[in-house]
Amino acid sequence: MPLLGDLLTNCPPSAADVEVNGLGTVAHAKPGDLLFLADPKSSRLPAESPAAAVLVEPGLEAKAKDFPGVVIPMAGARAAFLSLLPTLSPRRTGDVRGVSKSAFVHASAKVADDATVHAGATISEHAVVGAGCVVFPGAFVGPGCTLGENVTLHPNCVLHDGVHLADGVTVQAGAVLGQDGFGFDSDARGHHHLPHHGGVQIGAGVLVGANSTVARGMIADTYVGAGTVIDAQVVIAHNCDIGPHNLFCSQVGIAGSVTTGAFVIAAGQAGIADHVTVCGGVTLGSNAGMSRDCKTPGTYLGLPAQPADAEAKVVIASRKLPEMRRTVKELQKQVALLAAKIERLEAEESDDDLGLSLRDAA
Amino acid sequence: MPLLGDLLTNCPPSAADVEVNGLGTVAHAKPGDLLFLADPKSSRLPAESPAAAVLVEPGLEAKAKDFPGVVIPMAGARAAFLSLLPTLSPRRTGDVRGVSKSAFVHASAKVADDATVHAGATISEHAVVGAGCVVFPGAFVGPGCTLGENVTLHPNCVLHDGVHLADGVTVQAGAVLGQDGFGFDSDARGHHHLPHHGGVQIGAGVLVGANSTVARGMIADTYVGAGTVIDAQVVIAHNCDIGPHNLFCSQVGIAGSVTTGAFVIAAGQAGIADHVTVCGGVTLGSNAGMSRDCKTPGTYLGLPAQPADAEAKVVIASRKLPEMRRTVKELQKQVALLAAKIERLEAEESDDDLGLSLRDAA
Amino acid sequence: MPLLGDLLTNCPPSAADVEVNGLGTVAHAKPGDLLFLADPKSSRLPAESPAAAVLVEPGLEAKAKDFPGVVIPMAGARAAFLSLLPTLSPRRTGDVRGVSKSAFVHASAKVADDATVHAGATISEHAVVGAGCVVFPGAFVGPGCTLGENVTLHPNCVLHDGVHLADGVTVQAGAVLGQDGFGFDSDARGHHHLPHHGGVQIGAGVLVGANSTVARGMIADTYVGAGTVIDAQVVIAHNCDIGPHNLFCSQVGIAGSVTTGAFVIAAGQAGIADHVTVCGGVTLGSNAGMSRDCKTPGTYLGLPAQPADAEAKVVIASRKLPEMRRTVKELQKQVALLAAKIERLEAEESDDDLGLSLRDAA
Repeated sequence: MPLLGDLLTNCPPSAADVEVNGLGTVAHAKPGDLLFLADPKSSRLPAESPAAAVLVEPGLEAKAKDFPGVVIPMAGARAAFLSLLPTLSPRRTGDVRGVSKSAFVHASAKVADDATVHAGATISEHAVVGAGCVVFPGAFVGPGCTLGENVTLHPNCVLHDGVHLADGVTVQAGAVLGQDGFGFDSDARGHHHLPHHGGVQIGAGVLVGANSTVARGMIADTYVGAGTVIDAQVVIAHNCDIGPHNLFCSQVGIAGSVTTGAFVIAAGQAGIADHVTVCGGVTLGSNAGMSRDCKTPGTYLGLPAQPADAEAKVVIASRKLPEMRRTVKELQKQVALLAAKIERLEAEESDDDLGLSLRDAA
Repeated sequence: MPLLGDLLTNCPPSAADVEVNGLGTVAHAKPGDLLFLADPKSSRLPAESPAAAVLVEPGLEAKAKDFPGVVIPMAGARAAFLSLLPTLSPRRTGDVRGVSKSAFVHASAKVADDATVHAGATISEHAVVGAGCVVFPGAFVGPGCTLGENVTLHPNCVLHDGVHLADGVTVQAGAVLGQDGFGFDSDARGHHHLPHHGGVQIGAGVLVGANSTVARGMIADTYVGAGTVIDAQVVIAHNCDIGPHNLFCSQVGIAGSVTTGAFVIAAGQAGIADHVTVCGGVTLGSNAGMSRDCKTPGTYLGLPAQPADAEAKVVIASRKLPEMRRTVKELQKQVALLAAKIERLEAEESDDDLGLSLRDAA
Repeated sequence: MPLLGDLLTNCPPSAADVEVNGLGTVAHAKPGDLLFLADPKSSRLPAESPAAAVLVEPGLEAKAKDFPGVVIPMAGARAAFLSLLPTLSPRRTGDVRGVSKSAFVHASAKVADDATVHAGATISEHAVVGAGCVVFPGAFVGPGCTLGENVTLHPNCVLHDGVHLADGVTVQAGAVLGQDGFGFDSDARGHHHLPHHGGVQIGAGVLVGANSTVARGMIADTYVGAGTVIDAQVVIAHNCDIGPHNLFCSQVGIAGSVTTGAFVIAAGQAGIADHVTVCGGVTLGSNAGMSRDCKTPGTYLGLPAQPADAEAKVVIASRKLPEMRRTVKELQKQVALLAAKIERLEAEESDDDLGLSLRDAA
């Protein structure tokens, strides 16, 4: 078994001889595993664990008090742990390189010498595939698409004609870019599809998640800004202009012609309505739906979305609605009772002070 | 550069010599672009724009007052603009025709002479592909499927056995039709899958969006009526009977055995619960969830969905709930205070009119 | 036409000579069809139907009173009907067996003798495909994946490296397993993707629905327990530990690091937030969002989810909010009026009983 001293560059001397043979998590530790503990909110490590050792961020040692393995305090425990992933938990990658004879590469396409195009992938007319690109089986690159350098197209993703990917873009499996946008002129006879002659522009370093879809624009392209990351099953509709460094979690839906600034974040299943502009620095909570232009950075929740504080108060108040309804009914009764009592008191008063009351009414 | 007079059939004579070399949008205009302005709700065109000219619907000229390019008033500005898309913004389409030798076409399948089946597409046993059909790479046509004329199957879409597409159907990339429905008999041992021997029937002119799924029926087929258009990542579950000219935006979920009439519209992320029947002419707002049969055309919002007017009032009132809660608490205090005062008044009254009070009580 | 007596093992003698040539549903019956009626909540059969006969669960005969065909009371009507599906409504399956010469099978992969790998499928380096497996066209099995016995991979599904499927697993078309999880360290420069070296473990008999996605773990694998069934377009994010016999309807979203017990059920579009643990026996209603650990079995509804009873009361009360708001405003007016009246009464009282009031205040 490897020794931590040989694996970790800054290994504390006392831990140099600890043997580990894998990386694990508390819930799924195997014998010989190394764990790490770096989150102040983590639970304490259990008293029974097959794991061999744990890297602990200084200050959190108490959480490892019961742990039966070796406890190794180490500043930067998480980063040190992650640095071991390639060594102790290597991923098995394929060894195929170059353009497969079983790939469908059109004669007019240009594929860089060191690019890899796997069997069953399609590179269509006039498409350009840059240096260092990897195109997996079943991926489809449509006519006139351009891939910068080091683009990865995972199996069965689809780029329709006129999709342009900058350097370092990753498209996960099954994602579709550049399908016709969902735009119609509707009348009593039906829905008449509008032509979509824009394309899709994806900025450098963007990630498009598995089975996500990015529709092509109608006139201009649909844009996704550099550094934006998009999880699985996200919808980006036609004509969107998504800013840089956005982060969209799974099942987010961005309707047509939406514009976002930088660092807009949307949690799972959130949505933005069509033609809405959202300024930079906005975070949408899960399931929130932004239905209007938003010009103030901050966190928004709810359907339709409103600032988080306001929505939290609404949710809390909503939960007490049944109680409040009873309170209001009770108040109605009490008020009716008080009104009756007052009426009687007034009647009595007028019996007592008839002259005065008549004077008042005059 | 082309002259508008050569491009537009009804070009106003004054604009015949305007040179344009592309079509653009206000936000993404390039030098030489032609724009259009036809929506009374549009913003005014900016004072700085590289665009060469703009077609303006009569009555909206004021919005183009600051525009530095040529302003061309023209009735039907939008239609005229769209008519230029094929000329000024042509899409690059492939030139491959016919049945590729690298397609997997079973000997028992029937493919029309002028149909195109690309490399890497599969046409299974006894499937029928009609005239004018185009089947892109990676598309899978299962045993016994039938495609009418002019059907387009985009890359990597999947038709399982027993899926029948009428003329003019378009299935976008990655869509799946005819997978087993999600029907189980459940007991303490688990969930036991029910056989699904129905298929899928898709009416003429239907669009099935990218990565959408339409499950097969259990006994009868799952139906989608002619002219219905379905955006990306929509779910149509088993046994549904979707009417004609429905329009489902992205991420809509239609649960099992739902029936809809004509022209039912569902905005993004809306849903219809299983076994619900929705009459024609119903529109569901985004995220709305129709949980019961609906027999009245109109717009519905909310979870569960209710008529739009009622839901709007609920949303407005909800937003004021925290304030209302304070009001109710204040009312409770006031009422308690009044009650105490009345009690005192009554006590004093009874001191004053002891005989009267006793008479009342008798 | 076949006779029911020849088709049904327990056919009532009186129905043995009934001829049927297909199975149908009430809404889509064709001449000669057999129907069944077993749900006490079903509507009555119509007086006009081309169907030949109906199997009726004893006790429900009244619902078939108007049915023009043969009415056959029979205990276990539904099961008897379903048993006829393979005979009267056979699915057309392909006849291709074995490993296609047009499949892309790496030399280091191990494929069981009786497994079927269709043309255009990929079996990567060191992958193992067990006995009885069927891998459809376009399916991708990544490096080092293992498939137990009788696994079915439908067209165009994708297993990245390190995905392990136990016996009897079904992956529907377009599903993606093992893509990189959506985990980032974010700072002002952007979102920096974290390495994901865990894989995916899918238990025996699991169903993964069409276009669903299951992300790989970061350190440990992502787990889906035996017997769990997952409908179309469901998201299971990285590091999840899904228990056995869960049932997730379409468009459900399970965020990262979620743990569930046995028999957790989630209706359409429901979600569970990241790092949440849900105990066994929990049912989430459609669109519900479980945002906190849940330790009590039962049904939960709403956003955020709460016990169904409480949520139902909130929904009902919410619907009456606009009315309640009017009530509260009315109460405010009444209370103000009463307060004014009391003030006047008190003033009069103090006129009457000046000495007494002064005594009270003392």
